[in-house]
Amino acid sequence: MAAPLEFWFEFGSTYSYVGALRIEEECRAAGVPLVWKPFLLGPLFTAQLGIKDSPFNVSPIRGRYMWRDLERLCAKFGLPWKRPSVFPRGTVLAARVACAGEGQPWLGDFVRSVFRANFAEDRDISQQDVLAEVLRGLGVDAEKVFASAVTEENKARLRANTAQAESLGIFGAPNCFTRGELFFGQDRIADAISWALGEGRE
Amino acid sequence: MAAPLEFWFEFGSTYSYVGALRIEEECRAAGVPLVWKPFLLGPLFTAQLGIKDSPFNVSPIRGRYMWRDLERLCAKFGLPWKRPSVFPRGTVLAARVACAGEGQPWLGDFVRSVFRANFAEDRDISQQDVLAEVLRGLGVDAEKVFASAVTEENKARLRANTAQAESLGIFGAPNCFTRGELFFGQDRIADAISWALGEGRE
Repeated sequence: MAAPLEFWFEFGSTYSYVGALRIEEECRAAGVPLVWKPFLLGPLFTAQLGIKDSPFNVSPIRGRYMWRDLERLCAKFGLPWKRPSVFPRGTVLAARVACAGEGQPWLGDFVRSVFRANFAEDRDISQQDVLAEVLRGLGVDAEKVFASAVTEENKARLRANTAQAESLGIFGAPNCFTRGELFFGQDRIADAISWALGEGRE
Repeated sequence: MAAPLEFWFEFGSTYSYVGALRIEEECRAAGVPLVWKPFLLGPLFTAQLGIKDSPFNVSPIRGRYMWRDLERLCAKFGLPWKRPSVFPRGTVLAARVACAGEGQPWLGDFVRSVFRANFAEDRDISQQDVLAEVLRGLGVDAEKVFASAVTEENKARLRANTAQAESLGIFGAPNCFTRGELFFGQDRIADAISWALGEGRE
């Protein structure tokens, strides 16, 4: 039987965008249960690298490659793409909403819509009104969701996800985690799905 | 018509091993001409990151992931694997031999044999006698090759490759470069081959 696959993502991460828009469809096609795992990369970069910005901004040579690579990947997978005018954007509220939406039927659409707003529409996803519009577009009571997103319990949930990410050995995004194995990068979604299905295990 | 594909690799790089053992066969199957491009990662890491070691040693969290990832990738591609007892190993002489072997019929086999010696047999590829044994195993006059490898002209060739790698925007290994586009990582060999064939160009 297929094991669940956790998709560990950060709304500000370009490669998370490329993975997040495909992961649910690819898991469904393979019969693998998907679990969304929002977390914050910022605290990990600060703890591990001592930086307070994206490594793609800190290292211009990596940044240049990444922006071009994203154009190619989006063309390859048929995803819309518009380089955001601000990078990275603040993602705490969006990630809190995703935590609050655990198990809700709208969660997958919310995740994809927020990623598209950031990376295909250049909208400021750090702003509550932008997220509210996304939620309302999905027929969700935005005020009710925000109220549950900012409870201490839910804030703690996001902090716990970020701490768990670090304890899993995560150092970037996105990642798939299944059957005790971590797969870093949107390149490895197919490998992770095979692992979830129990293929190629050692 | 297919454009040539340059494979930019470093003998000390684990992911270069996984790519180098597959690249010639995959290019041949696609009808894409392959050009081996040996270079040294060390000077790039020093210039770009200010470090004098592998980033996988500098960052233990990335190192842990990489070593496990290599086991999985080798299992996936059916490659032999033995974690080297020294990492990274000195690769200047091996890279010089690869430069001196440009266009020679033994070059592909030499590259693969050196990678296997490092990552499947835990042999010290920094040592001339190890490389000599590899060359003799391929029926090549090792002394003659070493003599041409250490000429000033050939040493300059390796330095020029490393400088060109930096000017192409390279920051790691392996890479494929074709039709003006850089593809970083062994994950992207298929994408690079498609690009060499003129598929999916924008």
